[in-house]
Amino acid sequence: MQLLKEKIINEGKVKEGNILKVDNFLNHRLDIQFLQEVGKEFKRIFSDVNINKILTIEASGIAIASIVAQYFDNIPVVFAKKAKSQNLDGDLYTSTVKSYTYSKNYTITVAQKFLKKNDNILIIDDFLAEGNAMKGLIDVVNQSKANVAGVGIVIEKGYQNGGKDLRNMGIRVESLAIIDDMNENEIIFRK
Amino acid sequence: MQLLKEKIINEGKVKEGNILKVDNFLNHRLDIQFLQEVGKEFKRIFSDVNINKILTIEASGIAIASIVAQYFDNIPVVFAKKAKSQNLDGDLYTSTVKSYTYSKNYTITVAQKFLKKNDNILIIDDFLAEGNAMKGLIDVVNQSKANVAGVGIVIEKGYQNGGKDLRNMGIRVESLAIIDDMNENEIIFRK
Repeated sequence: MQLLKEKIINEGKVKEGNILKVDNFLNHRLDIQFLQEVGKEFKRIFSDVNINKILTIEASGIAIASIVAQYFDNIPVVFAKKAKSQNLDGDLYTSTVKSYTYSKNYTITVAQKFLKKNDNILIIDDFLAEGNAMKGLIDVVNQSKANVAGVGIVIEKGYQNGGKDLRNMGIRVESLAIIDDMNENEIIFRK
Repeated sequence: MQLLKEKIINEGKVKEGNILKVDNFLNHRLDIQFLQEVGKEFKRIFSDVNINKILTIEASGIAIASIVAQYFDNIPVVFAKKAKSQNLDGDLYTSTVKSYTYSKNYTITVAQKFLKKNDNILIIDDFLAEGNAMKGLIDVVNQSKANVAGVGIVIEKGYQNGGKDLRNMGIRVESLAIIDDMNENEIIFRK
């Protein structure tokens, strides 16, 4: 997606520790008009699939998934929670995720009533690196017997293993930009 | 907002500990079409104010703020973060918030570069109860010298002090539904 690559180059910053900061438009300040273009692009890519629900994970995935859902006939969005809350009760699907950013494990949770075995689910997230959060989300969908129709990622770090692992599992992963290498002076995208 | 009251009555559940569960449409599963109506309603209510930015807090506020922003000419959304992240650096505004749901304090953080002194900000959140998170967000805006044009709340618990406190501070608070009392059998809305 050309617009995304331009935004990464113009507004992104590569920081020590393999961090690509895109907080100006994707995960702290949100560029709503840009997210609408992301929604149109995911709809174009997944136009051959009959998707009835979007699953994402708090917090950064929520804005993207909510805007994207509008281009899929306003289908519902479910977001997995990372923290235990008094607001969560009833039967829950859970999965343990190793966090790259926070250097510790956490549990993701989705109420069972929100995933049904006939669901055809598009999973959306901002980044795919090692793919640990994504594997947790897929685990949760598998527990519910629903189907993962595809995974839509805004930025994939192609030099980490998440994308390869998921594709080897037979998951359809569509990333709007794949970064094959980056340093403070240069970001190299996959063609 | 009549549609909201109907959804609270039809889909909400009152749980022990003063919990109103609206996870079917507002903060776990997201009803996108309903959030669009929320966006139209906030635009109608705040049509007399020239707002250029929306501020909210992760996680439940993000979907609402993102959809609402579309009805304010796609102005940017900034969401305050609750956790320390490697992705946050540079100069930060912070404020300490007492959490009602989680029974502990936490720090909210916004990068200084995303709040400017000329900003006229609408703060959006799903719930207003004691108003602690909202007071933290207002504190952050005040630190930046920006202006709080108003606070837009989906559901206010009118029997708790948040709404009263904020209005006494001179803040314009607009809630789409105010609950004056609730128990397992009944939810009483303010007229």
